[in-house]
This record gives sequence, C-alpha cells and structure tokens, in this order.
Amino acid sequence: MRSKSELRQDIVSEDWVTIATGRGRRPNDFIARSKDHFWKKTKNCPFEKMLDKSFYVVLNNGEVHRPSQKNKLLLQKNWFLQIFPNKFPAFSHGTCGVARKEGPYSWEDGVGFHDVVITRNHEKTIAFMGQKEVESIIHAYRYRYLELKDDDCVQYISIFHNHGPEAGASLAHPHSQIIAIPVVPADVGRSIRGSANFFHKNKRCVHCVIIAFEKKEKKRVIYENERFIAFAPFASHAAFEIRIFPKAHMPMFESINHEDISYFADVLRISLRKLYHGLGNPSYNFFIHTAPAYDTKEFEHYHWHLEILPKTAVWAGFELGTGIDISTIAPEKAAAFLRKLKI
Amino acid sequence: MRSKSELRQDIVSEDWVTIATGRGRRPNDFIARSKDHFWKKTKNCPFEKMLDKSFYVVLNNGEVHRPSQKNKLLLQKNWFLQIFPNKFPAFSHGTCGVARKEGPYSWEDGVGFHDVVITRNHEKTIAFMGQKEVESIIHAYRYRYLELKDDDCVQYISIFHNHGPEAGASLAHPHSQIIAIPVVPADVGRSIRGSANFFHKNKRCVHCVIIAFEKKEKKRVIYENERFIAFAPFASHAAFEIRIFPKAHMPMFESINHEDISYFADVLRISLRKLYHGLGNPSYNFFIHTAPAYDTKEFEHYHWHLEILPKTAVWAGFELGTGIDISTIAPEKAAAFLRKLKI
Repeated sequence: MRSKSELRQDIVSEDWVTIATGRGRRPNDFIARSKDHFWKKTKNCPFEKMLDKSFYVVLNNGEVHRPSQKNKLLLQKNWFLQIFPNKFPAFSHGTCGVARKEGPYSWEDGVGFHDVVITRNHEKTIAFMGQKEVESIIHAYRYRYLELKDDDCVQYISIFHNHGPEAGASLAHPHSQIIAIPVVPADVGRSIRGSANFFHKNKRCVHCVIIAFEKKEKKRVIYENERFIAFAPFASHAAFEIRIFPKAHMPMFESINHEDISYFADVLRISLRKLYHGLGNPSYNFFIHTAPAYDTKEFEHYHWHLEILPKTAVWAGFELGTGIDISTIAPEKAAAFLRKLKI
Repeated sequence: MRSKSELRQDIVSEDWVTIATGRGRRPNDFIARSKDHFWKKTKNCPFEKMLDKSFYVVLNNGEVHRPSQKNKLLLQKNWFLQIFPNKFPAFSHGTCGVARKEGPYSWEDGVGFHDVVITRNHEKTIAFMGQKEVESIIHAYRYRYLELKDDDCVQYISIFHNHGPEAGASLAHPHSQIIAIPVVPADVGRSIRGSANFFHKNKRCVHCVIIAFEKKEKKRVIYENERFIAFAPFASHAAFEIRIFPKAHMPMFESINHEDISYFADVLRISLRKLYHGLGNPSYNFFIHTAPAYDTKEFEHYHWHLEILPKTAVWAGFELGTGIDISTIAPEKAAAFLRKLKI
C-alpha cells in the first residue's frame, strides 16, 4: 500500500511534486466558492469597445478581416473574435538583444508583443462555446503565433488564458493573451534540455513515451479523441491539473493543421467543461508549452502541449521556498472523477 | 532612459523576471484590501489547545521545557512558544530513500517531518512582537533544524511562515512551519549549482558579491544593522519582495550564534513591520533558503538567506507557463518606499 504522501518526479523537468492525501479530501471538497460578484455582467466592459484597436477580426460566419474604415459597420455588427494589443503591455517595441549590465547583474529591455484575444459574448466562457467557436480561437492563436514568430526579436511566444479572479484575470470577459519575448524562459529551457537528454539516452521522445503509457494505463486519462488526449499528469503540480497532448509527435504548436485544430478544440472544450461542472466553475489558467520560436533541429525531440492549472490551492511558503508543489488529491482520483463526469 | 519594461536575470538561478512599470503604479496602489473577516479573533482557535501535542515549549521567561505530566500547569500558564507536529502532515514517518517506479515515472514515499511553531498571542504577528519574542522564534527554528538534520532520511529542511489568506494561511493565529524532506528540491539544487558555478569562475561567493554591491549602491536597501541586511532583490519575483542576508559569509542557517540571532531578529521584525505599515497588512510568505541538511564541503560557496514574498499579485498564465514572474513596480522604488517609512 502506498503511504499517504508521495514525492513524484517530473521526468522532463526533474522537478519534484508532493501528493499529500492525508486529509482524505474527496473531489467534491474542491468545489469552488461562488464568485458571483466577479462573473456578474458589468455595463461597461472595456473589451466591448476595442474594435478600433483590433488588427484581426473574425466574423460569426468565420470570415477573417483586418479592420478598416470601409468594413467598420460590418465588423461591428458581426464580429465574433478580435485580437488587439494589450493596453498595459508587459512587453512592447524597443531594441532587443542588447545585454545590459548593472554591477554584477544582467538585464535587457522588455521588448516584444503583448496581445489580447477576445470572443464576443461576455458570459460565454470556452467551456460553453460550440466546437466551431473554440476552433476559431485556436486558429487565431496559430495565426498570431506565426506572425510573431517572424519578428527578429522574438525567441519565445506564450499563449495563455486566465479564467476567474484567483487565476489573475482582472476582467470576467473571456480573453486569452499572447506574449512574445526576446529570451527563452529558464523553465522552457529546462524542459527542452530534459526532453533532449531523454531522447539521446532512449532514442524516443519522452512525451511520446508518457502518452503511450497513459493510454495503456487509462487511470489518469480524462478524455481523448483520435488525435488528442487529456490526462492528469503523474507529477501534477496542482489538484485537478490537466495536460492535453497531440498523440502524434509534434514539436511545435504552429504545425497543427486544420484537422488537428478541430480535434484539439474538442479536447480543450470538453476538458474545460468537465472542470466547470465537476468543480463548480473554478478559476484556472491554461497555457501552451511549445518549442522556442525559431527553427532549428534542436527542438525536434520536443512535443508541444497545453496545461490547465485550476486554482485549487494557494502556493504558500513551502512551494515558494522549495519549488515543490503540493496537491491534496491523487491525480488518479482527480482523473477518474473528471473522466466519469457526464457533461 | 530605461524602457517601461525590463527583463532581469537572477544571477544565481539564471531565472528571468520582468519589471513592467507601464501602468505607473505607485507604492500606495499596492495597499492590501481589508481582510477583517480573516483576522478577527475566533473563539475556538485550534492552536490554543496544542500543549499536549507539543514537544518543545518556551515560557515567557525564556525557559525551554519538554512537556510532561509534572510541568503541565506551569507550561499552560506561562507558555510563549510551542512546536508540535502538523495535524495534516505533508510528510511523515516511513521508509526513505527507496526509489520506486511506475512505468517511466519515478516516485518515493513522502517521508519526513512537518512541524508547526506557534506563539501564544492570537493577534500579535511577528511585525508587532518585541525583539526578545522574535529571537525566541528564531532560536526555536534553529533548535528544531538541528534536531531534524540528525535524521538519516532528511536531505533538506524548509522553514517558512504563511501570513494571511492570500498567502495560503488557513488560520490567522501566527504560526511558522518546518518541513524536513528526503530529497533536495530542484530549485534549491539549481541555486546551489549557480552559486558553485559563480564561485569556480570568480573565486568569490555570488551572494557576498551581491551584498557588497547593494551596500555600495544603497538604492535597493530597506534596512540593515551590524550583521544583517534587508534589500529588494534586483530581479524581484514579486513587487515589494525583500531578502535578508547575514553580511558575513555563512552557508548554513544553523551556524548562526546567539548574537547573530539577535541581529537577524531585528532585521526580520523591522522588515515585516515596514511591510505592515507600508502596504496595510498584506498577506505574505517568508522562507529560509539554506544549504541542504548534510555536511559536505560542496555547499561552502552557498550563503543562507530569508526571502519575504508579499502577495502583491497573482501569478497567472504567463508566469506559470514561462516561469517568468512579472512585478509591476521597480524594486528600487519599492525599496525607497519601505526604507523611508517611519515605523
């Protein structure tokens, strides 16, 4: 029998996590407290007046437009999705690649891009969108990703979505963000190196090995279709964490084709819907982990994926001081709960 | 002139952080929202009935006792500080050092210790304690650290304190925690390796270089006395982050002597008091980073310190997806604000 607490190691990053089930928490204990004050529709949502700033607009019929004086009325009436620059960008235009020094320290200008992707309906979160709507969001991610990848300053592009106040969303209106930065984050660098080390040792992609094992074991699988799979990672960083992988080996997110997008959208929306129903609309973050934004054979062993981290706990002094996150439910139990959920 | 956003690199861990001051936030903008419901005294604080479970008790007069039937009444009346095992330990007794496998994954039993350190007064947080009281807490940390270090299973000991609901404290009663674990956390391992690399290249301790630079520059210093210094780190992970270092080179926390403890207590309490007054009792975590809990010359280049991370923001999708934390105030500005604060 396993003890009440386990230290599990992430085979890619080598990070440890703790699965501490001593409190005997059941899935229902994680149901989110009501946050009606946050979700309640406000009269003046700033995202409903961004058309003038948008540079990519998708209409309800799927047509993509760049706004101009000519098509303004058409877009105003029929827009479904927009991309525009963040009003308070964490990264913006400037001179990139100049390493600066201050005494022993290094820094450089925060050069890059910071965009916001919104869908029209203030209250309809991804969990409640139709298949075509979620596809449209992923097409927009990919479109902007490819555009940003062409910029000489850009080394890494992070696509993410914050849902709910505990996840750092400042507005309830469904929105994703795309940030392009001039460095490869240390975390991503470690995952790339971890994947490379595994590949050189075993001649196989570490993520392909994980996917094959999870498909065989089944106990951590939450949902899958022909091309994508969602499961609770063995070394989950948070209770009810979900990772979504393309089943075929694919280093870079931007390589997904039209058909892949449809399978990916299906798994993403079902996963979020299961979280919504299972945990009572919890706050969550999701983000894509993909290879850095420049072409090299170095990243061929990598395998892009999307991670959903529900805010089921607060990372406190131990997690911050050691980097070892504690989950208070076993991923196997969380996965079984979400898998069986009828939605 | 510096741009509105900077990428700064931690010279020890090589992690990047972003200082994004585009919103022009001033120190006063970080003042915490009132959380009176959390801090309000409850009639049945569970920490006030733990004497039977405690194994280390300090009286108001400074005497240290192990509880027994004989001294029960004396302790009940006069206790100031207690250490007892956490009721829901993340780590507990078991067989350590057995690496287990599940398919491609590794795990081991969560073997270790998980203790709680409390002081008597339900409402008197460290910021409001007297010098002797804070010294007593640090003596308790060191006492228990030394005891745990002797255990064969223990590889790392994390001492931390969670204050306020956003920092993950489940109870308002002031309490610290000490967790002893059978692995060296990846984060700590990286800092140890970063310090070693710097030492081998420069023949100096990286933290000593940082301390010397900060003392000369002054602009990030918050408070210092003869033996300890508190400053806002150049690559702060959170707005108003504070790090406290012994000025003399000292790899291991447990080497502090009686006099050091008095200087350390002074800097810790003044730092927390400044945070309390400056930011309106924000939630925060603090933790000690020290060398792993076994004696080897490997760690001689390390330099223990304490980090205080106020919960001035929520880490969202970008931070979680890249490991690059965003602070929305420059550490220099945060330090100037706290330094000048009359308390």
